[in-house]
Amino acid sequence: MRRFGVEQLVANLGIEHPGRAMHALIRELYPICRSVTGDGVRETLRIVSRELPLSVHEVPSGTRVLDWVVPPEWNVREAWLRGPDGKLLADLRWSNLHVVGYSVPTRAKLSLAELRPHLHSLPEHPDWIPYKSSVYREDWGFCLPHRTLESLVEGEYEVRIDSSLANGSLSYGEALLPGASDEEVLLSSHVCHPSLCNDNLSGISLLWLLGRHLARVEHRYTYRLLFAPVTIGAITWLAHNEKDLANIRHGLVVTLAGDPGPITYKRSRRGDAAIDRAAAHVLAHHGPHALRDFDPFGYDERQFCSPGFDLPVGCFMRTPHGEFPEYHSSADDLEFVTADALGDSLVALLAVLDVLEHERRYRNLAPKGEPQLGRRGVLGDAPWGGELHRAMTWVLSLSDGRASLLDIAERSRLPFAMVHEAASRLSSHDLLRPVDG
Amino acid sequence: MRRFGVEQLVANLGIEHPGRAMHALIRELYPICRSVTGDGVRETLRIVSRELPLSVHEVPSGTRVLDWVVPPEWNVREAWLRGPDGKLLADLRWSNLHVVGYSVPTRAKLSLAELRPHLHSLPEHPDWIPYKSSVYREDWGFCLPHRTLESLVEGEYEVRIDSSLANGSLSYGEALLPGASDEEVLLSSHVCHPSLCNDNLSGISLLWLLGRHLARVEHRYTYRLLFAPVTIGAITWLAHNEKDLANIRHGLVVTLAGDPGPITYKRSRRGDAAIDRAAAHVLAHHGPHALRDFDPFGYDERQFCSPGFDLPVGCFMRTPHGEFPEYHSSADDLEFVTADALGDSLVALLAVLDVLEHERRYRNLAPKGEPQLGRRGVLGDAPWGGELHRAMTWVLSLSDGRASLLDIAERSRLPFAMVHEAASRLSSHDLLRPVDG
Amino acid sequence: MRRFGVEQLVANLGIEHPGRAMHALIRELYPICRSVTGDGVRETLRIVSRELPLSVHEVPSGTRVLDWVVPPEWNVREAWLRGPDGKLLADLRWSNLHVVGYSVPTRAKLSLAELRPHLHSLPEHPDWIPYKSSVYREDWGFCLPHRTLESLVEGEYEVRIDSSLANGSLSYGEALLPGASDEEVLLSSHVCHPSLCNDNLSGISLLWLLGRHLARVEHRYTYRLLFAPVTIGAITWLAHNEKDLANIRHGLVVTLAGDPGPITYKRSRRGDAAIDRAAAHVLAHHGPHALRDFDPFGYDERQFCSPGFDLPVGCFMRTPHGEFPEYHSSADDLEFVTADALGDSLVALLAVLDVLEHERRYRNLAPKGEPQLGRRGVLGDAPWGGELHRAMTWVLSLSDGRASLLDIAERSRLPFAMVHEAASRLSSHDLLRPVDG
Repeated sequence: MRRFGVEQLVANLGIEHPGRAMHALIRELYPICRSVTGDGVRETLRIVSRELPLSVHEVPSGTRVLDWVVPPEWNVREAWLRGPDGKLLADLRWSNLHVVGYSVPTRAKLSLAELRPHLHSLPEHPDWIPYKSSVYREDWGFCLPHRTLESLVEGEYEVRIDSSLANGSLSYGEALLPGASDEEVLLSSHVCHPSLCNDNLSGISLLWLLGRHLARVEHRYTYRLLFAPVTIGAITWLAHNEKDLANIRHGLVVTLAGDPGPITYKRSRRGDAAIDRAAAHVLAHHGPHALRDFDPFGYDERQFCSPGFDLPVGCFMRTPHGEFPEYHSSADDLEFVTADALGDSLVALLAVLDVLEHERRYRNLAPKGEPQLGRRGVLGDAPWGGELHRAMTWVLSLSDGRASLLDIAERSRLPFAMVHEAASRLSSHDLLRPVDG
Repeated sequence: MRRFGVEQLVANLGIEHPGRAMHALIRELYPICRSVTGDGVRETLRIVSRELPLSVHEVPSGTRVLDWVVPPEWNVREAWLRGPDGKLLADLRWSNLHVVGYSVPTRAKLSLAELRPHLHSLPEHPDWIPYKSSVYREDWGFCLPHRTLESLVEGEYEVRIDSSLANGSLSYGEALLPGASDEEVLLSSHVCHPSLCNDNLSGISLLWLLGRHLARVEHRYTYRLLFAPVTIGAITWLAHNEKDLANIRHGLVVTLAGDPGPITYKRSRRGDAAIDRAAAHVLAHHGPHALRDFDPFGYDERQFCSPGFDLPVGCFMRTPHGEFPEYHSSADDLEFVTADALGDSLVALLAVLDVLEHERRYRNLAPKGEPQLGRRGVLGDAPWGGELHRAMTWVLSLSDGRASLLDIAERSRLPFAMVHEAASRLSSHDLLRPVDG
Repeated sequence: MRRFGVEQLVANLGIEHPGRAMHALIRELYPICRSVTGDGVRETLRIVSRELPLSVHEVPSGTRVLDWVVPPEWNVREAWLRGPDGKLLADLRWSNLHVVGYSVPTRAKLSLAELRPHLHSLPEHPDWIPYKSSVYREDWGFCLPHRTLESLVEGEYEVRIDSSLANGSLSYGEALLPGASDEEVLLSSHVCHPSLCNDNLSGISLLWLLGRHLARVEHRYTYRLLFAPVTIGAITWLAHNEKDLANIRHGLVVTLAGDPGPITYKRSRRGDAAIDRAAAHVLAHHGPHALRDFDPFGYDERQFCSPGFDLPVGCFMRTPHGEFPEYHSSADDLEFVTADALGDSLVALLAVLDVLEHERRYRNLAPKGEPQLGRRGVLGDAPWGGELHRAMTWVLSLSDGRASLLDIAERSRLPFAMVHEAASRLSSHDLLRPVDG
């Protein structure tokens, strides 16, 4: 009956350990040099599309999208920095993070004083390489461990950045998984960061696994999975899909899903959308977690929730951006994200979708007094006074055609899945009928 | 002026100590062998009706009532269990609790192994006899102190239950105490439990005393006092009074009113009915207490609040069912309920009715600026700046025709009775006029 | 741009230290013998009107005003009490507080027993003279340090009160400072207390300084500053201005503004008026403070908020009346109120007016996705990610034509002034447009 439990996903996809499957995808995507545009994003989308029916869109540089313009496409082939002694100090081959994203082509010899403004480090974490990008301001630079930066001596440094910034296109991928209804659930993850695992290979891997499952089970909603560069990607997608946005009933930005912190849900701008209530309910039963009100900072919920769209899109994550030290550094690596955390995120995310899928209102068909459950055998083997019996009693008591299953779950403090199970059994014994359908 | 204070009840009924009067009734009702149906209930109703104008209804076995059917009538004349040595181990004459309610007629000799499934005890309270009943499942059994049960040896046991389960009727009593208005307050107590004092001779005695008082004073509402077996009694009453339910404005299930715990009020399903606010207000001023949200478990509020009726009926009690160790055992006896606790319940219950009776909206007739109270002598002997003066000031300030006296009591944190007294004095000085009347 | 900061007031009025300027006015007003009516009030209004365009109204004794009547005018020229030894025990020339306000003319010799009911003291503060008044009950009396009172011996006492209680008038002053709109902000301070600094020379001085500033800057609202005796003054003003009250959009009673305690704001009777929200918001950012719900006790908010008017008038003060030991005693003196506390009150009050003046709703003109701020130079020198940038992001996110700047300030927890600054800058870059105007 339940289609949105992790057991169903496991059975459906024939994978033993979903967390490890996600971590394996992350490992494959980790070495790719991604940025807002370019071949790294294309390669990422190609890998995701092996198991997920992804349509990839290319939007030419210079295209006007809402208040923005699609930037030139950036690719980098080689990038290194050599010291006065000729020794390599940073090399793209060592880490994608060494070169500042969107660095313009550069071939130069400079003094330390001239070089210095182009170098970035994290003094508080001297062994980590920071992540920097400069899409909308023409610049170049290198990111170094602070320990390396501090050891630099006077002399002539040699810089080589063999990059291109040229007309090309912005790439994004979209998987449309049709459900019984045209109404849509939008799930979005950004794909523009280079070798950072939590931000956001974790989100990509979660949507990838979820999408594979959704492609094989029946569901009520049509799911739209979006893999796009942050900000300009979401804006491009919004600009090109404006007429269809009215179909979106619920949405989540999925990101930072693999770190060891507890799950955080950030509400949509509306604050009381169904997705907001569903996530809060699920997390209350899931374990330690945090709820946050909307603020216009973060990931692409900023665009989806902008006042001209105001879509009911929340943000599902573990530790929020900027609140873990590894954020935007080389320490956000394959060790930092774990199969356990990814698996835990999946379980919670499936439970949220389970609420959305089965949320509806019912009407008690024997509403005067309590119906005599005993003679009907509704409970089957479940114990009198047990959780299922309690859930049935709550469902009967509150199903006056106004309260929904989520209303009932909230008021009874029982998990939605149990309330839904109770409603299903009562329906099959003609004690309950869905309202409007 | 106040008619719902305990002093007025004392004067009106000429009894010195209401708590002791209730305890005396409990003592008289304690030995009677009650069940859902049968002569025990009839005898109980007969005793209650000595001082209260009770109409007793008999509804034949087999009558369809809502989703249920009135069960056969059960009576028991003799019931005992003898050990292999011929010694009596349990006897109805010792305690009504020894025999499981609705035990079918039985005359048998059994081995200990055959007997064992028919025996019930409370291992955690080895000297107490539990209370069990089996109305809707054909069975028989005995309840024993765990100490007795543990001492049983192999051998042949003799069982005798001389009971009858036959066509008959379900009995309930109803006292209708007309008020100025046809609008009704429903007060209900279940009468189906054998020798258990708190559950529910306490509720019966409280309604009995309250009813006697209400029969002798003027009141706004018509009071309907219902003495019926739990569940099936309430369902039967609802089935037979369905067309008149629209008159019910407020209601309380009264039960568990004599134990030493603090008063608990459980809200109606609506949660914000006038009775819910009245009870919460009274208890806030009464002393330590507990408020609970509605849940569809408990006593007959389950039926009155079922979604097809959704009556504004809360539950007034002390310690809720199942939350005191003596619950449903022989320890719920004449010692467990006290005259003090019963008297305290009465005081609070009267105060709740006082709110319902006098709750209304007024309009300040000198609403522009403060009226000059000094020259009018409205305060009489009451001190300037004292509680009555403060109550008058609040009443004048908030009586714009929208706020009711209970609204004012809540906002000012003054007791309703003081606010009502202030309104009465202001009315008699033409500074206030009731709205709609 | 900001006109309601203390810096603008300082520049505008050319005074270096506003707190000291207010304290200097208090020092000048302190010796004047004020009461509900009489020459002391007139002299006070004359001094206030030196720098503020005040129209002074005289309302004849005996005039009916709402439920009240304007009392006779009281003036006192001489008042003293001599002991049996001929020594002066109290003299009006020593302190205005020595004589009970509205004492009837008296010339008598009395025994201690006869005198005693006419003497008042503060046993818990034996060196302080209490303040008493008896406007509506014919009486006379003296207020003494408790130490003096305790030292009195048997013998003949001589009393002289050369006062007049006669037809005259009640005086109040009003400054009307027209703004762009006819809609009004009412600011009111009582002027009837003799030599008490916090109660209410502090409020008078605050309105005086504020009024001088408002007379010289452009503002949206018309400000009405009212200097009137407490209760009967407000009632008289209300009676005479009833037809114009509909113009009042916001109001504050300003009092007790110079003591060392934190600022207290007491909400209007409505509880959620714009002034209530503005004050709560400003104080949240101002520092330690207290918020109180309305109660019908206190100063003239009692009259303004009476149900027939229900004006949105709160009370701005520091420590509420009766909650500091110096209240209504000679210890409420020139030392008790400080320039620092007065200055702090001024800063907060200006900030509240700043909210009222600039509160409005805007509409984001680039509402779909985030507008690209970078290319527009909206931020100027302000840092990306700093408070102004954050405020702009919030303003853009929430300005859908429904949320006002105060709504945005509340939700973002940013100070209103910052949110207003952000809205101004966004407006000047055509990213925002006021709604309705």
